[in-house]
Amino acid sequence: MVNKALNDNTQLSIVNSQLNACVIGLGLIGGTFALALRDNKIVSKIIGVEANEEHAQKALQLGLVDQILALDEAVKQSDFIILATPVTIAASQLPKILDLVEKQIVIDLGSTKFDIIQSVKNHPKRGRYVASHPMWGTEFSGPEAAQHNVLQDRVIIICDKNDSDNDALEFAENFYHKIGMRLVYMNGEAHDVHLAYVSHISHITSFALANTVLEKEKEEDTIFNLAGSGFESTVRLAKSNSATWVPVFKQNKENVLDVLNEYISQLRKFKSSLEKENWEYLNELIEESNKIKKILK
Amino acid sequence: MVNKALNDNTQLSIVNSQLNACVIGLGLIGGTFALALRDNKIVSKIIGVEANEEHAQKALQLGLVDQILALDEAVKQSDFIILATPVTIAASQLPKILDLVEKQIVIDLGSTKFDIIQSVKNHPKRGRYVASHPMWGTEFSGPEAAQHNVLQDRVIIICDKNDSDNDALEFAENFYHKIGMRLVYMNGEAHDVHLAYVSHISHITSFALANTVLEKEKEEDTIFNLAGSGFESTVRLAKSNSATWVPVFKQNKENVLDVLNEYISQLRKFKSSLEKENWEYLNELIEESNKIKKILK
Repeated sequence: MVNKALNDNTQLSIVNSQLNACVIGLGLIGGTFALALRDNKIVSKIIGVEANEEHAQKALQLGLVDQILALDEAVKQSDFIILATPVTIAASQLPKILDLVEKQIVIDLGSTKFDIIQSVKNHPKRGRYVASHPMWGTEFSGPEAAQHNVLQDRVIIICDKNDSDNDALEFAENFYHKIGMRLVYMNGEAHDVHLAYVSHISHITSFALANTVLEKEKEEDTIFNLAGSGFESTVRLAKSNSATWVPVFKQNKENVLDVLNEYISQLRKFKSSLEKENWEYLNELIEESNKIKKILK
Repeated sequence: MVNKALNDNTQLSIVNSQLNACVIGLGLIGGTFALALRDNKIVSKIIGVEANEEHAQKALQLGLVDQILALDEAVKQSDFIILATPVTIAASQLPKILDLVEKQIVIDLGSTKFDIIQSVKNHPKRGRYVASHPMWGTEFSGPEAAQHNVLQDRVIIICDKNDSDNDALEFAENFYHKIGMRLVYMNGEAHDVHLAYVSHISHITSFALANTVLEKEKEEDTIFNLAGSGFESTVRLAKSNSATWVPVFKQNKENVLDVLNEYISQLRKFKSSLEKENWEYLNELIEESNKIKKILK
């Protein structure tokens, strides 16, 4: 049964607090968007869908959602559907969700876009879906990791917007504006290339750094005591969840490999400058990298 | 001429606000320790020594120091000497400083310890020197980068403490306590091994990441817009000054190369798991790296 707000044949409005939303996947990202829905009084009810029973109970306890339902029922009862499961699961759920959809609006929040968009490329309800990706996250996971008031001023990327129905796109844009996000548009393929550079490789550099230090430095106290010296910020992302990240690397394999190869070749330059004691070259490499200051203040 | 506090033949006390200090090298670290001296009312006068005329003037303007003098004169007029120049310069300055010293106390704050300690190993005044290294820093440099009240609760490593005279060690320890730092003791060689793991490699991973992204991602706006997604924290250290870091890598070459080789071999595991689409192995690699959570909350 579709919510009454959908039956009066008018377009959904973001200021209609009679709307029901459902959030599929109640982890860090789904939970944080549930809080944004609630804090901004965008909907009257939030239904959660969560395969992990413990997470589902925790999400109810924390007040992220009002009710837990199975996917089919949740979609049928909702006007606005937010898909926030790991990206391989999202790509398999999205066609099923669109099968159930009439006029509802579906957004996803995955860190890759090409495969997810591809999964509904020829779906008759493709227009109800708006592909998006928020530039926000932390290294923590699960419903307890959800945070209030962290999405303001963050970029949200909307991909392939011309493949969404006008009213669905407009609803999603209004929603993101209402919670204070800054819209950036891209095509899905370009998104995955850019994200490999600017996010996915950073996770690999952190995972590998943690493994290096755990392998080499057997004195845990020493790691703890000395971590102030730069290590803590470079290794932070190594706390990130494999359930989130293996699917991202799976879906963005080619782009990530391309950047990873470049990264290893950049490291070899540092290695060679050290081995040859070519301090002038090492100086050049560091000064080159300092140019990042012009972009990131 | 040595300050009068030295002439009464009693030991220097950290509570004697008649002391003069000199800070050699008025950058991020020297400047921050000058502020700590002043904010904690540890000395009555701070003399600065700085080869870069512009930095010297800036340090005076900012009130980091009361006066700029040449090294020899500054050492002679000071009771407490803080050496905070890049580590290769520090290793060449320290023997000259000890040549000038009578009862004064000299500390250095360099990111490597073995070579600096080695430079005065057989110096008749070796006992006046306390080798140390604060676990604090930022990616910024120069006198403007100096900060108030940032050293509290930070670790300061004191190396080879048995080679310092008792009163010099005690003075340095009291100073660090007074500014709120937590003392950790190590030998100089072990220090350089640990720091290669926990700090120096982090800088290389960031420098190489910046070079990778600057090479691959030609759209600066994209880097700027997408940086929220993990990149900003992993690349932060790439803003660090080559004048500081080339000398560190020079002095700690063998240890850094050792860790860098391990790091590249860890990255190759990620590369191989992607190339072979061995998602189970990738999952293991990430779960292994997650163990860093047990050490760094």
